[in-house]
Amino acid sequence: MKELFGSRGKVSGLILRMGQCLFAAASIAVMASYLVLCPSQIICHLIASMGLQFLWSFSLACLDIHALRLKRDLWNYIFLSLLVVGDWVTAILSLAAACSSAGVVVLIVKDTNMCKRNPQLSCNMFQISVALAFISWFFLAISSCVMFWRTASE
Amino acid sequence: MKELFGSRGKVSGLILRMGQCLFAAASIAVMASYLVLCPSQIICHLIASMGLQFLWSFSLACLDIHALRLKRDLWNYIFLSLLVVGDWVTAILSLAAACSSAGVVVLIVKDTNMCKRNPQLSCNMFQISVALAFISWFFLAISSCVMFWRTASE
Repeated sequence: MKELFGSRGKVSGLILRMGQCLFAAASIAVMASYLVLCPSQIICHLIASMGLQFLWSFSLACLDIHALRLKRDLWNYIFLSLLVVGDWVTAILSLAAACSSAGVVVLIVKDTNMCKRNPQLSCNMFQISVALAFISWFFLAISSCVMFWRTASE
Repeated sequence: MKELFGSRGKVSGLILRMGQCLFAAASIAVMASYLVLCPSQIICHLIASMGLQFLWSFSLACLDIHALRLKRDLWNYIFLSLLVVGDWVTAILSLAAACSSAGVVVLIVKDTNMCKRNPQLSCNMFQISVALAFISWFFLAISSCVMFWRTASE
C-alpha cells in the first residue's frame, strides 16, 4: 500500500484536516460580522456549508489524532468508502457555496459598484470570508483526492 | 479490469460525453441571447467555461467513437492520467461557473427583486442557462469519477 502525502493516520493528513477546520471557522467568524448588515440567502448558504465542513473536518481530525496515538490504521474498507463519499459531498457543497458567494462579490463589487454606493455593506469582509472559504475547500479537496485514490487502489 | 458504467470505449461513456456537449451548447445558446441585455463578468465566465467543457467533451466523444469503431482500448496509462486531470480541471471550472451564476441568480431574483423591477433583464433565460450548465456538469462529474476510479484501480 502506497503511503501518500495527506493520507489518513499520517501527520500530513492531520495538518490538512486542521487547516480545513481553521479556515472554515475563520470564514464563518468573518462572515458572521457581515450577516447583521446584509442578510442574504447566499451568505446563509456559505455559513451553513462552512459549518458543515468544520464539523466534518474536526471529527476526522479527532479520528486522525486517535489513530496517530495508537500508531495503527483503525478503519476498514466499508467505513473508508463512506468517509470518501462524505468527503466528496462536503467538498462539492463547500465549493458551491464559495463560488456562489464569489459570484455575488463580483456582481456587487465589479459589475454594479453597489459597494461604493453603500459603504455600510462591508464588502471587504465579504471578500475575505469568501477567500478563506476557498482556502478551506482547497485543503479539503486535497484530502478527498488522496482518500479516493487510496480507497480505489486498495 | 472492472467494466464500469460510463467507462471509456463503452456506449454509456459515449452517451455521457454527448450529454455534456449537448447541455453545454444549450447553456451557451440560451445565455447568448441574454448577453446582449446584461453584460456581466459572471455571464462571460459561464459562457467561457461551458465553451471549454463543450470542446473538451466533444474531443473525448470523438475519441470514444473511434475506440468503439475499432472495438479496442486505444489509450495507455500516462495518456489516461492526463485525461483524468483534464476531466477534473474542466469539471471544477464548470461547477465554479455554474455556482457563481446561481449565486447571482439568487441575488437578483430572490434577495433584491431586481428582476421584477427590470423586466428587460430576461431572468428566466438566465435561470434556464444556469440549470443547463448544472446538468452538463453533472454528466461530466460522473465521467470524471469513473475515469479517476478506473485509473486508480489499474
